[in-house]
Amino acid sequence: MNPVVVKRLVAQALEEDIGSGDITGMAFGGVPAIGRFVAEGNIIVAGLAVAREVFRQVDPEVEVELETADGAAATHGDVLLACSGSGAALLAAERVALNFVQRMSGIATLTRHYVEAVAGTGARVADTRKTTPGLRMLEKHAVRMGGGHNHRMGLADGVLIKENHIALAGSLAKAVAHARRHAGHGYRIEVETTSLDEVRQALAHGADIIMLDNFEPLAMREAVALIGGRAMVEASGGITLNTIRAVAETGVNVISIGRLTHSAPAAEISMDIFPA
Amino acid sequence: MNPVVVKRLVAQALEEDIGSGDITGMAFGGVPAIGRFVAEGNIIVAGLAVAREVFRQVDPEVEVELETADGAAATHGDVLLACSGSGAALLAAERVALNFVQRMSGIATLTRHYVEAVAGTGARVADTRKTTPGLRMLEKHAVRMGGGHNHRMGLADGVLIKENHIALAGSLAKAVAHARRHAGHGYRIEVETTSLDEVRQALAHGADIIMLDNFEPLAMREAVALIGGRAMVEASGGITLNTIRAVAETGVNVISIGRLTHSAPAAEISMDIFPA
Amino acid sequence: MNPVVVKRLVAQALEEDIGSGDITGMAFGGVPAIGRFVAEGNIIVAGLAVAREVFRQVDPEVEVELETADGAAATHGDVLLACSGSGAALLAAERVALNFVQRMSGIATLTRHYVEAVAGTGARVADTRKTTPGLRMLEKHAVRMGGGHNHRMGLADGVLIKENHIALAGSLAKAVAHARRHAGHGYRIEVETTSLDEVRQALAHGADIIMLDNFEPLAMREAVALIGGRAMVEASGGITLNTIRAVAETGVNVISIGRLTHSAPAAEISMDIFPA
Amino acid sequence: MNPVVVKRLVAQALEEDIGSGDITGMAFGGVPAIGRFVAEGNIIVAGLAVAREVFRQVDPEVEVELETADGAAATHGDVLLACSGSGAALLAAERVALNFVQRMSGIATLTRHYVEAVAGTGARVADTRKTTPGLRMLEKHAVRMGGGHNHRMGLADGVLIKENHIALAGSLAKAVAHARRHAGHGYRIEVETTSLDEVRQALAHGADIIMLDNFEPLAMREAVALIGGRAMVEASGGITLNTIRAVAETGVNVISIGRLTHSAPAAEISMDIFPA
Amino acid sequence: MNPVVVKRLVAQALEEDIGSGDITGMAFGGVPAIGRFVAEGNIIVAGLAVAREVFRQVDPEVEVELETADGAAATHGDVLLACSGSGAALLAAERVALNFVQRMSGIATLTRHYVEAVAGTGARVADTRKTTPGLRMLEKHAVRMGGGHNHRMGLADGVLIKENHIALAGSLAKAVAHARRHAGHGYRIEVETTSLDEVRQALAHGADIIMLDNFEPLAMREAVALIGGRAMVEASGGITLNTIRAVAETGVNVISIGRLTHSAPAAEISMDIFPA
Amino acid sequence: MNPVVVKRLVAQALEEDIGSGDITGMAFGGVPAIGRFVAEGNIIVAGLAVAREVFRQVDPEVEVELETADGAAATHGDVLLACSGSGAALLAAERVALNFVQRMSGIATLTRHYVEAVAGTGARVADTRKTTPGLRMLEKHAVRMGGGHNHRMGLADGVLIKENHIALAGSLAKAVAHARRHAGHGYRIEVETTSLDEVRQALAHGADIIMLDNFEPLAMREAVALIGGRAMVEASGGITLNTIRAVAETGVNVISIGRLTHSAPAAEISMDIFPA
Repeated sequence: MNPVVVKRLVAQALEEDIGSGDITGMAFGGVPAIGRFVAEGNIIVAGLAVAREVFRQVDPEVEVELETADGAAATHGDVLLACSGSGAALLAAERVALNFVQRMSGIATLTRHYVEAVAGTGARVADTRKTTPGLRMLEKHAVRMGGGHNHRMGLADGVLIKENHIALAGSLAKAVAHARRHAGHGYRIEVETTSLDEVRQALAHGADIIMLDNFEPLAMREAVALIGGRAMVEASGGITLNTIRAVAETGVNVISIGRLTHSAPAAEISMDIFPA
Repeated sequence: MNPVVVKRLVAQALEEDIGSGDITGMAFGGVPAIGRFVAEGNIIVAGLAVAREVFRQVDPEVEVELETADGAAATHGDVLLACSGSGAALLAAERVALNFVQRMSGIATLTRHYVEAVAGTGARVADTRKTTPGLRMLEKHAVRMGGGHNHRMGLADGVLIKENHIALAGSLAKAVAHARRHAGHGYRIEVETTSLDEVRQALAHGADIIMLDNFEPLAMREAVALIGGRAMVEASGGITLNTIRAVAETGVNVISIGRLTHSAPAAEISMDIFPA
Repeated sequence: MNPVVVKRLVAQALEEDIGSGDITGMAFGGVPAIGRFVAEGNIIVAGLAVAREVFRQVDPEVEVELETADGAAATHGDVLLACSGSGAALLAAERVALNFVQRMSGIATLTRHYVEAVAGTGARVADTRKTTPGLRMLEKHAVRMGGGHNHRMGLADGVLIKENHIALAGSLAKAVAHARRHAGHGYRIEVETTSLDEVRQALAHGADIIMLDNFEPLAMREAVALIGGRAMVEASGGITLNTIRAVAETGVNVISIGRLTHSAPAAEISMDIFPA
Repeated sequence: MNPVVVKRLVAQALEEDIGSGDITGMAFGGVPAIGRFVAEGNIIVAGLAVAREVFRQVDPEVEVELETADGAAATHGDVLLACSGSGAALLAAERVALNFVQRMSGIATLTRHYVEAVAGTGARVADTRKTTPGLRMLEKHAVRMGGGHNHRMGLADGVLIKENHIALAGSLAKAVAHARRHAGHGYRIEVETTSLDEVRQALAHGADIIMLDNFEPLAMREAVALIGGRAMVEASGGITLNTIRAVAETGVNVISIGRLTHSAPAAEISMDIFPA
Repeated sequence: MNPVVVKRLVAQALEEDIGSGDITGMAFGGVPAIGRFVAEGNIIVAGLAVAREVFRQVDPEVEVELETADGAAATHGDVLLACSGSGAALLAAERVALNFVQRMSGIATLTRHYVEAVAGTGARVADTRKTTPGLRMLEKHAVRMGGGHNHRMGLADGVLIKENHIALAGSLAKAVAHARRHAGHGYRIEVETTSLDEVRQALAHGADIIMLDNFEPLAMREAVALIGGRAMVEASGGITLNTIRAVAETGVNVISIGRLTHSAPAAEISMDIFPA
Repeated sequence: MNPVVVKRLVAQALEEDIGSGDITGMAFGGVPAIGRFVAEGNIIVAGLAVAREVFRQVDPEVEVELETADGAAATHGDVLLACSGSGAALLAAERVALNFVQRMSGIATLTRHYVEAVAGTGARVADTRKTTPGLRMLEKHAVRMGGGHNHRMGLADGVLIKENHIALAGSLAKAVAHARRHAGHGYRIEVETTSLDEVRQALAHGADIIMLDNFEPLAMREAVALIGGRAMVEASGGITLNTIRAVAETGVNVISIGRLTHSAPAAEISMDIFPA
């Protein structure tokens, strides 16, 4: 992750939560205290470095020790992070630090379930641009920590020609030709398709990646055969933990899943604080 | 919502997603297009004004019409927002606008389920500080649109004395006395309790609001009776859609629920774009 | 105070004052120097931590020692802060550091005069939202250091129904009912009144705090009696050092004073710098 | 004033005051309203364009009419600005708009008193760098509106060699020579002096402007004679409305006064809001 | 280009140049004026939309007409942009608007020369990350307007394994394998090589793009033959207008050139302003 | 330079270049590495402190040693800066650090050539406002390091009456009189002239500095004689390394040159990185 972005996001979160000062906690400034992040369930950890930055911005005197690493599994009772410093600082930092780590670990944990579901098939689990506005870098890091892969970061660094683009361009052929002419040579051209016929067109016009959007398993298998390795194949659209194995077994290379980031529940983690 | 904050959040989200420019969509700039947000399920809408701001920042020439209002219910196929403008602008704005509205509507929808579950009991459903870092204002607005109420916005505007505070202060009595002396006169003093004994102490020291943290229903009912209207009562901790009715029927005034904001799945909304 | 906000305010002030560089002072970079903040009169000190942040941002090598604490009294000649480092750094930081501390100490000093004037009456002296745009957190901190109390931080964290609101709502009853229904349960509802009749109405509709705006002492005393402890009473409007004692003796709980922040003269403090 | 800076300062002030939203005023959004800024005493007006920007940022639909201009005099009852729009917008903008205009008009009003006190003497009244951190541009504009002149904006755009600089440079001669060699050719070199002897030295080394710091009137007159037009003369240090005329009559060219900006009381201005 | 980024860059440039206000130009506020950007030589135009944003931020009342389009050629005397509004606004905006357009047009013009030099060869001219800190988006847009292509925008959106990476990874094989495993599937893997031997290795390990760094023309031709279309070929390192044709004729696909952005001289464009 | 501005500019450049993370370099985080900036030609160094800040922001653990100082000359092979730390950090910081130092050293190098060309004549070489938007402070620092002098920083800190101003004011006399009345007393009034007749007018109306814009050498010499020391003389307009000596020998005091900043090619500097 970019440390400059982490600093900015943490500063904004602390402005938001602490505002003009913690009116409950300011009473306990002088009391030295110890704090611990503890897992309350089975989770994949992500975001510990962000939590450390939260404590440092609240008070550079707080000592933080990471007890595990991003990407590691933890179970009920495991200590993830330990810190010590003034009670006022720990109390002021607690909620923001937890909010970051719970969200990121929630995404890593959900991603891991999807990744495990396709184990051995050779298919990658990938995220999408359906991330929380402003937090994409953190959420894409969490996906990697869960064992997933990242799709493009935004509209500037990847070409994905969708139904909407084709409608406006007039034809798939024109849309691909235009992208090929203008996109940087480091990016592959991806085309979204909704039928075998469109798959054939995408192939004919030289798409580097073909996305199969909401294909039935049978059609998906047929599409993979049709493409025959001449383009990478990405499955997308409404894939769940129940259906992902079947999708992966059709032979697609990548399965992208919006809910990894837009609907992952927060991981259960709490913070204990007590006098030092 | 504060319009200045909406502007800032939208600008940040667009810097993040569009980056240095939409390399796929820039081809279709000249084609006039029409777009619509369509509900894909039963939802409570929230965030339409944020979506409008997204379109405006991408291109002030885009016309946006809100077809419903925040707080309204929508079902599969309902049009929430219609817009028209250059195809390039609609394509560039689409994902960010959806990301805001799907998240906010997801929170409003989940909140509404909790609110309906306590209908008639007189209990309020309230949010917490367990919000997405940076987006608290939007998420608390969504809770209100779902029929819920807002707890304090942050550490600066409310006194909530928790276990951790009492541990550092030495005693509940000291913690309350300190808060009473220093907090602004417009804020009520709230004390978190974990047993009937603590409820008695909180009451004795004049807490204005007593939070019952993870109480069993029976103990909760007993606590409500004990308090007898001398303080407001808030239930908190692990309350779900299955248990909230029982909690509300104990007579508590407020039920606060972290998952309204930290674990609400995105609402199902899609955007259609086609040539004008 | 929120350290993240202090950092931001100091950075902005240094961008403003130092601009692209101190063209007078850059000549003396190599000379080690010592500096001291000295009180030039009787003052209450506030803002020393802000001054320290100023020196640190100009040059992390500067050593800063606080010789007293925010909230302490100082008299002519007292040293408040001592620092040592490169001459160029001390010269570049001097004016900004002084501007913060002189303003904050000016507010703390004026507040203390008001607080002393009501000693023994049980009335609190409180500030208002009439603060310098952008510096509210610092100014409210200064009020606390002077012994005063803070009113709400802004429009989001307190309900104060004024004449203007009632005019727009149609009636005091409607305005209070609406606020009661929508405001968070942690906030008390305050109503501004301008006559005994309005006091009666506010009381009847359950205001938690009743503000007596520009009441004559006699009417104020009558209002306090009328309210009889059923609501907190706040006096406001044109109260000066000459009149505050009489106001406090009417039995009001809180006296709010705009000039604490909008018209406090700067405290007299100077900085000496000499070669180390 | 730089409109980009005005926009930034207004946005920051509105983030600070409105926070996540006006919980009192949001109830009255639908009611059209009219508002007016009214002078409550004899003032010189400054900051109306800033107030207009406040209303526009809260709601671009609000119509604002300036009824007078910055720099004009107003007396009790004069309307300075009229606006119309949604009641919620006027209520949300009121305090921030007033805070800017009251502070700026307070500075303009105090400046005008000093300027009138030296009428006919040929001396200019000038401000200093003793301004509110972050608001220097606004405060220097207010000084101009009061009829005063601006000293340099910051450390980057003017050379002022003070006692502290000379102490670190080793001698006045060295300090001036260095500045002459390095400063841009568009800036005059100013030297602060505290005795006639230092005046002689400053003159000998070619200072363009000589500041007489805390000189007695007699010594000041002597210094002016000594300088004899070979350098501009600026008086500074503890000059009040009572003493400024005598200072001006010594023949100095400029009189700089910190209290114009650091200790000006807010101008008395109120806002009326009523249903349209 | 991303309009949100354009807005931010323009605001920063105007804060920098106008500072607290244009002390020369503020005298002429009332005089209506007309302005024109005029080419002083043969140039390729880029940045007109940025200039328009400059005028709008200084004063939304200024009318701006673009007389040509980004990417067009212009010769001495051609009018590029016309505007009308208050004289003070045009004078305040002039320099910043010109600074943007001169730099961007300078880059577009230099790029066009390189592009024309390879006409007919099938080789693309591409930029690098050697851009002005903070202005990369504008400079990469200018390259496109000159007919060039963009390499990756930054470190997050492309894999380019250089000598330094291989040194740290231990071997080219390890470096490529790692990148293949971790990079998003939409990015091609590029490897920098400095000898035919390294070209063979890169090919063997499946590089998608092979960069030939500072190859002699003969070796370059040999490398192209060796690669035989199995990977894209990019030439890089010290290529000038004199040598680029020979490079292109070796059959490489892409030629990347740092000086397009790091050493392009400003295009000659001036602004005339006269009373309306 | 203002350290607060350096921090801000570095942070923005790193957000731009590293984006959400270095996907190539993140593989080598654990390998300790050493890096060096090496001159590839004869240059004047500028910007080393900015490079140090780049490394620190990427990773505070990186150790940076400046091997020379801003303003020093370096030749092919000279080491300018050495650093050690994690390989990932050095790789991530490399390009941004180089981009700053190459641009700043390019400006310093070009300036030095101009300064040496006028050696012994007494004329100063000065920059203009034709700088890269956002980087003026860095570029003006680089000019000083090359031995040049700075003209005003922006529109707020100097008065320069140009043709356009005179056109709008109606006459040179009016323009100067207005500036004299309103500008701060620390700024000299400069007037741009295009003929000997205008020089006479400028002199008659008391201009402190007279700019000779695009004068032929003969006319320039005549203007200098005419002015006879009664005003400072600045030559401007299209002066190159070939013509500057002749210009300087006319006796002008200052020669301002836009291309110092708007057209300086980047200095040739590279960075070596190898395992520690």
